[in-house]
Amino acid sequence: MSAQAPAALFDQNALRRAVDTTLTEFLTRQARNAHRRGLPQQAAQVLGDFIQAGGKRIRPVLCVAGWQAAGGTDTPEPVLKAAASLEMFHAFALIHDDIIDASDTRRGRPTIHRQVGTEAAILIGDLALVLADDLLHTAGLTPAQLTAALPIANTLRADTIYGQYLDITHAGQPPAGPGPALTITRYKTAKYTIEGPLLLGAALAGTSGDTPCGLALSAYGMPVGEAFQLRDDLLGVFGNPDETGKPALDDLREGKATVLMALALQNANPTQRRTLVRNVGNPHLTHDGAQQVRAVLTDTGARAAVEDLIDQRCQMALATLDTADLPPHITAELRFLAFSATARTA
Amino acid sequence: MSAQAPAALFDQNALRRAVDTTLTEFLTRQARNAHRRGLPQQAAQVLGDFIQAGGKRIRPVLCVAGWQAAGGTDTPEPVLKAAASLEMFHAFALIHDDIIDASDTRRGRPTIHRQVGTEAAILIGDLALVLADDLLHTAGLTPAQLTAALPIANTLRADTIYGQYLDITHAGQPPAGPGPALTITRYKTAKYTIEGPLLLGAALAGTSGDTPCGLALSAYGMPVGEAFQLRDDLLGVFGNPDETGKPALDDLREGKATVLMALALQNANPTQRRTLVRNVGNPHLTHDGAQQVRAVLTDTGARAAVEDLIDQRCQMALATLDTADLPPHITAELRFLAFSATARTA
Repeated sequence: MSAQAPAALFDQNALRRAVDTTLTEFLTRQARNAHRRGLPQQAAQVLGDFIQAGGKRIRPVLCVAGWQAAGGTDTPEPVLKAAASLEMFHAFALIHDDIIDASDTRRGRPTIHRQVGTEAAILIGDLALVLADDLLHTAGLTPAQLTAALPIANTLRADTIYGQYLDITHAGQPPAGPGPALTITRYKTAKYTIEGPLLLGAALAGTSGDTPCGLALSAYGMPVGEAFQLRDDLLGVFGNPDETGKPALDDLREGKATVLMALALQNANPTQRRTLVRNVGNPHLTHDGAQQVRAVLTDTGARAAVEDLIDQRCQMALATLDTADLPPHITAELRFLAFSATARTA
Repeated sequence: MSAQAPAALFDQNALRRAVDTTLTEFLTRQARNAHRRGLPQQAAQVLGDFIQAGGKRIRPVLCVAGWQAAGGTDTPEPVLKAAASLEMFHAFALIHDDIIDASDTRRGRPTIHRQVGTEAAILIGDLALVLADDLLHTAGLTPAQLTAALPIANTLRADTIYGQYLDITHAGQPPAGPGPALTITRYKTAKYTIEGPLLLGAALAGTSGDTPCGLALSAYGMPVGEAFQLRDDLLGVFGNPDETGKPALDDLREGKATVLMALALQNANPTQRRTLVRNVGNPHLTHDGAQQVRAVLTDTGARAAVEDLIDQRCQMALATLDTADLPPHITAELRFLAFSATARTA
């Protein structure tokens, strides 16, 4: 199929629109059904508004890329719905993350728990998780596709939760080194953002993770996923809030055990170390304090080192693509995605 | 099969033990796998301890009853695992409920969020929900069984969350009447406690909800489920904390919009109404205040009226069993369950 595969087969913007339409229609139907049975429509409505307020749809796009990488053609509706279910799961993860991190702003708007209260936000997150299942199960997949998809979806979900659990048990204390921080990154984000969606898509096309195609997608996906999160860590500290949609101080106030912070602590002199320990994880951190932390992160070379780690990972992923036997239009798309996921500003 | 079906085919105690073993083995494996991959075992361990600390396993028992009601024999391992997944879902619902209700005690011990903090408890609840899926998906069901089970499981889950959402949006304000309170009861508890598990079990035996057997199970399950929750409401106010495992003041402090409270408000004179409004939903409610509320609930006849509602529902369920064409040993079990679910003290 690679011979007859023009770039138009993988129109990312069209795919994003199709995902949005799928999610909107699904949630509108959910809200209507709830109302018809005397149940609150608000939960599904708030969830729908949250999803439409932003997001790059990177997971559904990668799922469809995985499907086509493994020989799938176009984007059949069941594949589109399975891909969209990843975005619904992502909404769940963000809503509960924001409660856990006590974040006030997401996608340039108040976080869900700031809109409706923590109690309702917990339930809206729960609903998103259940509806992610529902969307996957009712996607119209064949029994063989469903059987292949379920274990991947379950592992992806459990890993995300384990990673987040690891994250909160490390938050607020100085990271023990870049190793543990990288483990958090790997499970909390890398797998469910890049590798998992690719493997899910491939599984829908009948290709498992231990085939040459599946192994290539993992070998590409893991480093890009890590680079994605390392970029996120940098943006959380150095990013422009107008572009990221998140306040400039949130990540520093929370004191996440990031690779960036671990490297800075490792290289800091006593004065720099005091600056970090005093400010990072301090819920009352000021803009002045944040500036001092940024200076230390830069002066210790941690910021540059993380940029190097991102670059290395991006190179590893590109090298994998060079040797992997994937359809040319997918190789091109995955190259583009590796850059846009790791060199982004939002 | 009814001819060769002795009571021993449905040994509730043996079934409970088998469910417990299934859950313990599954969670031990989860914890071990997590540890092997550098992930925290604590989440699965805390969840396992919580499940083993108590619970009547009523949902798995009903699932197996539904299976046998629809012609299934014994309790094959896939059916046992599917049944156990309902208990895992129940753990999710309780853990998040307790956070939402700010409850301090459950099953005679500190609630999960009092043990590990709210952030970790949100994630342990999330993990329970994901693992409930995992246990169902890896139960070893046939594709046909899985296809039949998934929509029932999803509806049951979404309804529980919608019911809880309805509950919190009504909590703290005087209930508008017994009607809305009964809707909450129906969705928050009745469906996922009795009807859902029965229908899930029947579906595993190839019997859908619109067959005579499925309709009989619904006609039995809905009233028993409502009676179960109405009993729970009474126990929350009048129960013995040593038996219920929950503090005597929690439900009153929270101010749930129960049928009990709605009926009391409907029948109260101005003095009684003031007592209710002043005390119910008051987070600082004293034992003295609670005694005054209990007196009003009794004096207005609300307590007796709820006992009547429970009795009516129990009678409806028993009448259904009289006319339904279910295997005799299941009819006997369901009779017993109707009494034990609605006349219980814990």
